[in-house]
Amino acid sequence: VRTGVSEIIYGEGKTPSQIAGIVAAMRDAGQRRALITRLDAEKASSLQVLGVDIAYHERARAAVSGPLPDADGNGEILVLTAGTSDLAVADEAVLTARFLGNRVTCVHDVGVAGIHRLLSHARQISHAQVIIAIAGMEGALPSVVAGLASCPVIAVPTSVGYGASFGGIAALLGMLNSCSSGISVVNIDNGFGAAYQASLINHLKAREHDI
Amino acid sequence: VRTGVSEIIYGEGKTPSQIAGIVAAMRDAGQRRALITRLDAEKASSLQVLGVDIAYHERARAAVSGPLPDADGNGEILVLTAGTSDLAVADEAVLTARFLGNRVTCVHDVGVAGIHRLLSHARQISHAQVIIAIAGMEGALPSVVAGLASCPVIAVPTSVGYGASFGGIAALLGMLNSCSSGISVVNIDNGFGAAYQASLINHLKAREHDI
Amino acid sequence: VRTGVSEIIYGEGKTPSQIAGIVAAMRDAGQRRALITRLDAEKASSLQVLGVDIAYHERARAAVSGPLPDADGNGEILVLTAGTSDLAVADEAVLTARFLGNRVTCVHDVGVAGIHRLLSHARQISHAQVIIAIAGMEGALPSVVAGLASCPVIAVPTSVGYGASFGGIAALLGMLNSCSSGISVVNIDNGFGAAYQASLINHLKAREHDI
Amino acid sequence: VRTGVSEIIYGEGKTPSQIAGIVAAMRDAGQRRALITRLDAEKASSLQVLGVDIAYHERARAAVSGPLPDADGNGEILVLTAGTSDLAVADEAVLTARFLGNRVTCVHDVGVAGIHRLLSHARQISHAQVIIAIAGMEGALPSVVAGLASCPVIAVPTSVGYGASFGGIAALLGMLNSCSSGISVVNIDNGFGAAYQASLINHLKAREHDI
Amino acid sequence: VRTGVSEIIYGEGKTPSQIAGIVAAMRDAGQRRALITRLDAEKASSLQVLGVDIAYHERARAAVSGPLPDADGNGEILVLTAGTSDLAVADEAVLTARFLGNRVTCVHDVGVAGIHRLLSHARQISHAQVIIAIAGMEGALPSVVAGLASCPVIAVPTSVGYGASFGGIAALLGMLNSCSSGISVVNIDNGFGAAYQASLINHLKAREHDI
Amino acid sequence: VRTGVSEIIYGEGKTPSQIAGIVAAMRDAGQRRALITRLDAEKASSLQVLGVDIAYHERARAAVSGPLPDADGNGEILVLTAGTSDLAVADEAVLTARFLGNRVTCVHDVGVAGIHRLLSHARQISHAQVIIAIAGMEGALPSVVAGLASCPVIAVPTSVGYGASFGGIAALLGMLNSCSSGISVVNIDNGFGAAYQASLINHLKAREHDI
Amino acid sequence: VRTGVSEIIYGEGKTPSQIAGIVAAMRDAGQRRALITRLDAEKASSLQVLGVDIAYHERARAAVSGPLPDADGNGEILVLTAGTSDLAVADEAVLTARFLGNRVTCVHDVGVAGIHRLLSHARQISHAQVIIAIAGMEGALPSVVAGLASCPVIAVPTSVGYGASFGGIAALLGMLNSCSSGISVVNIDNGFGAAYQASLINHLKAREHDI
Amino acid sequence: VRTGVSEIIYGEGKTPSQIAGIVAAMRDAGQRRALITRLDAEKASSLQVLGVDIAYHERARAAVSGPLPDADGNGEILVLTAGTSDLAVADEAVLTARFLGNRVTCVHDVGVAGIHRLLSHARQISHAQVIIAIAGMEGALPSVVAGLASCPVIAVPTSVGYGASFGGIAALLGMLNSCSSGISVVNIDNGFGAAYQASLINHLKAREHDI
Ligand SMILES: Nc1ncnc2c1ncn2[C@@H]1O[C@H](COP(=O)(O)O)[C@@H](O)[C@H]1O
Ligand SMILES: Nc1ncnc2c1ncn2[C@@H]1O[C@H](COP(=O)(O)O)[C@@H](O)[C@H]1O
Ligand SMILES: Nc1ncnc2c1ncn2[C@@H]1O[C@H](COP(=O)(O)O)[C@@H](O)[C@H]1O
Ligand SMILES: Nc1ncnc2c1ncn2[C@@H]1O[C@H](COP(=O)(O)O)[C@@H](O)[C@H]1O
Ligand SMILES: [Mg+2]
Ligand SMILES: [Mg+2]
Ligand SMILES: [Mg+2]
Ligand SMILES: [Mg+2]
Ligand SMILES: [Mg+2]
Ligand SMILES: [Mg+2]
Ligand SMILES: [Mg+2]
Ligand SMILES: [Mg+2]
Repeated sequence: VRTGVSEIIYGEGKTPSQIAGIVAAMRDAGQRRALITRLDAEKASSLQVLGVDIAYHERARAAVSGPLPDADGNGEILVLTAGTSDLAVADEAVLTARFLGNRVTCVHDVGVAGIHRLLSHARQISHAQVIIAIAGMEGALPSVVAGLASCPVIAVPTSVGYGASFGGIAALLGMLNSCSSGISVVNIDNGFGAAYQASLINHLKAREHDI
Repeated sequence: VRTGVSEIIYGEGKTPSQIAGIVAAMRDAGQRRALITRLDAEKASSLQVLGVDIAYHERARAAVSGPLPDADGNGEILVLTAGTSDLAVADEAVLTARFLGNRVTCVHDVGVAGIHRLLSHARQISHAQVIIAIAGMEGALPSVVAGLASCPVIAVPTSVGYGASFGGIAALLGMLNSCSSGISVVNIDNGFGAAYQASLINHLKAREHDI
Repeated sequence: VRTGVSEIIYGEGKTPSQIAGIVAAMRDAGQRRALITRLDAEKASSLQVLGVDIAYHERARAAVSGPLPDADGNGEILVLTAGTSDLAVADEAVLTARFLGNRVTCVHDVGVAGIHRLLSHARQISHAQVIIAIAGMEGALPSVVAGLASCPVIAVPTSVGYGASFGGIAALLGMLNSCSSGISVVNIDNGFGAAYQASLINHLKAREHDI
Repeated sequence: VRTGVSEIIYGEGKTPSQIAGIVAAMRDAGQRRALITRLDAEKASSLQVLGVDIAYHERARAAVSGPLPDADGNGEILVLTAGTSDLAVADEAVLTARFLGNRVTCVHDVGVAGIHRLLSHARQISHAQVIIAIAGMEGALPSVVAGLASCPVIAVPTSVGYGASFGGIAALLGMLNSCSSGISVVNIDNGFGAAYQASLINHLKAREHDI
Repeated sequence: VRTGVSEIIYGEGKTPSQIAGIVAAMRDAGQRRALITRLDAEKASSLQVLGVDIAYHERARAAVSGPLPDADGNGEILVLTAGTSDLAVADEAVLTARFLGNRVTCVHDVGVAGIHRLLSHARQISHAQVIIAIAGMEGALPSVVAGLASCPVIAVPTSVGYGASFGGIAALLGMLNSCSSGISVVNIDNGFGAAYQASLINHLKAREHDI
Repeated sequence: VRTGVSEIIYGEGKTPSQIAGIVAAMRDAGQRRALITRLDAEKASSLQVLGVDIAYHERARAAVSGPLPDADGNGEILVLTAGTSDLAVADEAVLTARFLGNRVTCVHDVGVAGIHRLLSHARQISHAQVIIAIAGMEGALPSVVAGLASCPVIAVPTSVGYGASFGGIAALLGMLNSCSSGISVVNIDNGFGAAYQASLINHLKAREHDI
Repeated sequence: VRTGVSEIIYGEGKTPSQIAGIVAAMRDAGQRRALITRLDAEKASSLQVLGVDIAYHERARAAVSGPLPDADGNGEILVLTAGTSDLAVADEAVLTARFLGNRVTCVHDVGVAGIHRLLSHARQISHAQVIIAIAGMEGALPSVVAGLASCPVIAVPTSVGYGASFGGIAALLGMLNSCSSGISVVNIDNGFGAAYQASLINHLKAREHDI
Repeated sequence: VRTGVSEIIYGEGKTPSQIAGIVAAMRDAGQRRALITRLDAEKASSLQVLGVDIAYHERARAAVSGPLPDADGNGEILVLTAGTSDLAVADEAVLTARFLGNRVTCVHDVGVAGIHRLLSHARQISHAQVIIAIAGMEGALPSVVAGLASCPVIAVPTSVGYGASFGGIAALLGMLNSCSSGISVVNIDNGFGAAYQASLINHLKAREHDI
């Protein structure tokens, strides 16, 4: 079975005591760490009251039990965000990626309205092993980034915006229809899913060589 | 009444003889020229068979009766397209703008996937009086352009694309949710409407001065 | 770079202390004024508690720091609303336009159900340099106005209505499909965006003359 | 049972011989006339070849077998259309209304973009017993008309338009969200349905008096 | 101008003092009564505190100032509802109809799942001058009713339901696509609009006779 | 594995020679019969030219190879349709049900607009083992039927209709939101799927008894 | 009339005293039990305060008055859920099925991401008389289950998920388009409806035999 | 710039002579090969008539000019399809991947309705470097595959299906909402885009090591 999945708990719709039980069972099974996503501050407090030893990351709405591992991937995951309102999703992605053993760099606030600010990060973009590009509203960031990058770009639409942004649909459609090659897309606000796949990519071993 | 509107015939859903009748009536009323939009090649031939003297522009799906006027606007309208499939819509915009007395420059194939090609036109962008930015798929072009320009940008989504582009909806939503300021949007494939408003902007006279 | 954009802060999703920091940085950079949009009353109070000197406009959900400039545009921006429920969006537009140096006139409650009331303002409509037409429900106001006006009309759909108004979609679609020429559209409830473009139009200088 | 319904055949999806059979059965049952709607020209020819005696109305896509009745309603049904592309739907409405015994007047091409043309028909509008207002694109006509009229207005959205008109959805939503009172709506392109209800209204007898 | 409209205030989005001002102005203009729709209980109390003399109808979310008029229509308006959750919309319709001078009868809970209960009211259905049929969920009631009735049926979809009822869209679409003749439709939950048009129909005078 | 599935070929998107190959392989594997659904007339001819021995049912767009089995279910499947345009879907259901060993009765043209016609079949409805109710437009038939029946009702929305029927969405939503109990729904136009499940229900053996 | 329906009260949108009245009337009519669905905890308490003797099931949001009946169906209803967040819908289904006299088994947390866990229940799946498969997100569970089962599968989409799950639409569409045969679908979150139909199926008597 | 992009021509909306011109220019610039996607058979013939030397792959709707390169990736790309109707999209993916220097294996017809057939390929799934999972209808294949695999899965929804599959939307939504980790999604029918990203992943070099 795939490493990592069994260490991650989706917190939404679970009670604190259900989560505490799962974490305890994991520990008993010899697991050193756990990541709990979609966990609001109130539930995190309840968990701590129940004696579960977690470090809570408020903006990421996630908690880690146990120490983060050393990074052991092939390179670096670069997380880019278009605006300040995308930070919560970025934080979920960054924490997930670190939890899964990746070195991560973030560059924030590089939306396409100010293209020169994005271009000033061209070197980082060309050095990344895999890029996570996060944007709401019109979701144009991944298109420009993929044009500059030579690595895979995972696009995350966010629910940021109002009116005809329809809770992230505009950004999602923009990303699915990107005129750039090398992009794939995850669900709206799914920083976790983007980081999970980025980590898989960053940990791939060359299995056999063709030439 | 507004100049220009009465000179333009929407060809869709009218028979050649209906159109011929309208053009004749215009002539009788002393009008020197007419623009017929959304006119397919077959109808254009029928019009010519009926003796209506028109110059037909196939890709623009439009015809002009009478001479084009001299340009008398305040500056230049710059028409930008993202890809080659947006050319038909661009042609409709260019012909309409010229018909309404504007000087027009076109720069094609400057989609955001190749951002440096777009940036190589920065000087033209900063010199335009008004810009028409035309794009299908994710519709990101106007966002980047408006960030570079200091004039109004009219965005035209096109029905280019497949799958989740939904006949232009993805591009339309992208443009409505642009993170750049200074953009407004017209209907999908509405090159005519963009040019019409651009012409109004390009012909505005300072009516009264405030300082 | 375009004047004005750097002076405007989008308040949604930013904490009071983040906003206070941005305003302070602007001051340090020598900027005399700032406009903060999408700012609710509670955040505005917090800003004032933090010592930021702002004038808060509740219905517009916006605040201004520093003095408003003198109007220096080419003419007047006319803001029209269909009903009383569109006033909040209109206020955002008016404040933004004034902040950007425009003379603004408002005419409220001129929805198309009472067409004679709208027609009684025909003179103002024909004198405007640019018109912002704001309407919810079926969004028909801009169509009638553009038929009466000879200047550009920027249409703003509002989220006013219930049932099949779908939070402004009905009005947005109505405006995009207008049978009148000379209209372009911004996002639902985007009074800011309409005013920003209107200001650009109102400040255009004739760059070069063609005849 | 309601008069009229049994005399009307919905032609779509029926073969010419099925239709011929139904008409024959009606005749046998002593019925003097029949209306066949949604009948294309080819099927109409086949019907005639099969010996069914019909008068075919091409633009209305409908045929009448037997003589039209005299009008016996309380007043006049006024059919208004916004543009020339709405004529087919209008023709279906007019033919249906006449078939059901109504006097009908038509006024075409009174879209809201040219409001003064519509206003020049104010007298007819105020004299109608019931109004059918037909429009595609943004569908604003019924809103203005209902503001001028004191009789019921039945609104018919048409599938005229392109791009974000979505085959009549924009017009349908506009009509459902009208800011005017006294409007109800039928399905897109449903000229028949509007005329049917208009005829019911026009034939109502005062059953009992309250004062 | 049309009688009635000027006496009705749409309460949504207006403050109690705005409403009080409008009511006072109406009184000054010699109007004897006013109907305020979409008025929640809290605002109604505030109005009473401000000294406005109203009778508040909680389930209808509406208030009447002044006496209700005598009924002076041609016949009776029959209001039918499918289920108990449609009662609020029905109450708005009934109150509006009475306010506009109509005699109204209600039959509740006659949804199509229990068709015999509906059929037991066949006599009332055949005696009505105009019928308002109100239903949520699949919105099938008007189809069955129109098949039984010989008068116009105005269908009102309600936002009752869950899941794929989409806040009334399922019912709205069902009604627009009814296989019965004689139906027209108003906006979701728009009891007011249905009653307004029903009242127009019920008050029509035979203007001129054709035979 | 489930009986029956392996005997049915979905013809859409397969070439005649692909289908011929599958039928041959089935025969070789000892299977006596095959049903090919979604097969247009042209492909059916090609199959016959290729020497495949089939009986083609044009309106059902389906072909049977081999003899139909005797019916061996617990009771009768009753197929009801609202209108004549639903016949193609009904035929697919009937043929599938017979192919799977069921006795089938059909009652056509019992749409809810003529409720008494439907009620005249009450006895058949109460005798069925399982009912398939097929309807387009507003899709109200299953709601009324389920209120009369005491067996399971499988609802099939059809793509019959125009305008806001959206190719069967209106009917689908109506059926999903039915106010009657005992209904489940299959995909638009999926006569096959309804018959398949109806056959499973009709062939259920009492496995163990609880009392 | 169908057994069971008259014993079930839909609690949503009814006041506690309305519900108490209905329960009392049922008792008076000699009914031994009642099921109240869509009843929140607060209303349940109010009911108990009003003296109605109910057993409240919080997660199922439902209450039972009177004793549950013995199971008297032909076999067993198997309820399968994909994830822990589907438990509330499952509980509504289980309670309804028991209330209607069925033996029910539940297997939880057998989503398709861990296919071997689902396969470990293959024996239960092949022994069920009818299966209710409940899943949110992509709603794939019923497809895999129907491939393993030889009995009817009723699929229930749940509103579990975020972003592009659109409150259950993704799951609903997945289920309607299943590539497996033998599936039908009920409304989003409609555990009641699935159980009701499952119970009908489980109680079917062989009415007549064909061979 | 990224290798590969400049070698690929999107054929849709380009004339044969435009394409011939681009291919010629590529040759002149020293490029050995070109891939032309979305090229129908007729255009391919025209290209050959124009003297362009291509190998045309009909089902993939793509052509290759010049020799395919040797595979030089880190491992193998595994392409899985749910049904035979997904083959065209799979072919586009396979050809693109081979063109970009990848070894590719295909396993067809492993839809989730027959889960054991899919499971019989578990070894191939666990040996892949990256998987492309292609499915229409409910799009459940990637969810099951990702649960079995430990490499990245790129999901491609196809437009296969009818009714509520909405041209691939059902599959797209299913994939975006997958309950499995490690999946990202491309546009409907975008076999090219999936292969492009898969090739990037398969060619990643470990740039720097972290431990
Ligand atoms: N934020 C998230 N969004 C989507 N999926 C998640 C998220 N967090 C965890 N998951 C997935 O949910 C699984 C755990 O689900 P559960 O067993 O309900 O805790 C993990 O293995 C992940 O595959
Ligand atoms: N109400 C608004 N709606 C849309 N865009 C806005 C609004 N207010 C400000 N903006 C834009 O947001 C930019 C500032 O964003 P930020 O840097 O996040 O504060 C401004 O320059 C404007 O382009
Ligand atoms: N509940 C309602 N739904 C829709 N329109 C309404 C409603 N109540 C009143 N109206 C309309 O709103 C008008 C008054 O709007 P206002 O001037 O904003 O108070 C009335 O004349 C009616 O046309
Ligand atoms: N949770 C539920 N979802 C959908 N329908 C329900 C539900 N609970 C009860 N019903 C239906 O509602 C009917 C009772 O409705 P009512 O007369 O309004 O209480 C029952 O006979 C069922 O058909
Ligand atoms: Mg790239
Ligand atoms: Mg700019
Ligand atoms: Mg104008
Ligand atoms: Mg009126
Ligand atoms: Mg009737
Ligand atoms: Mg029943
Ligand atoms: Mg099965
Ligand atoms: Mg996996």
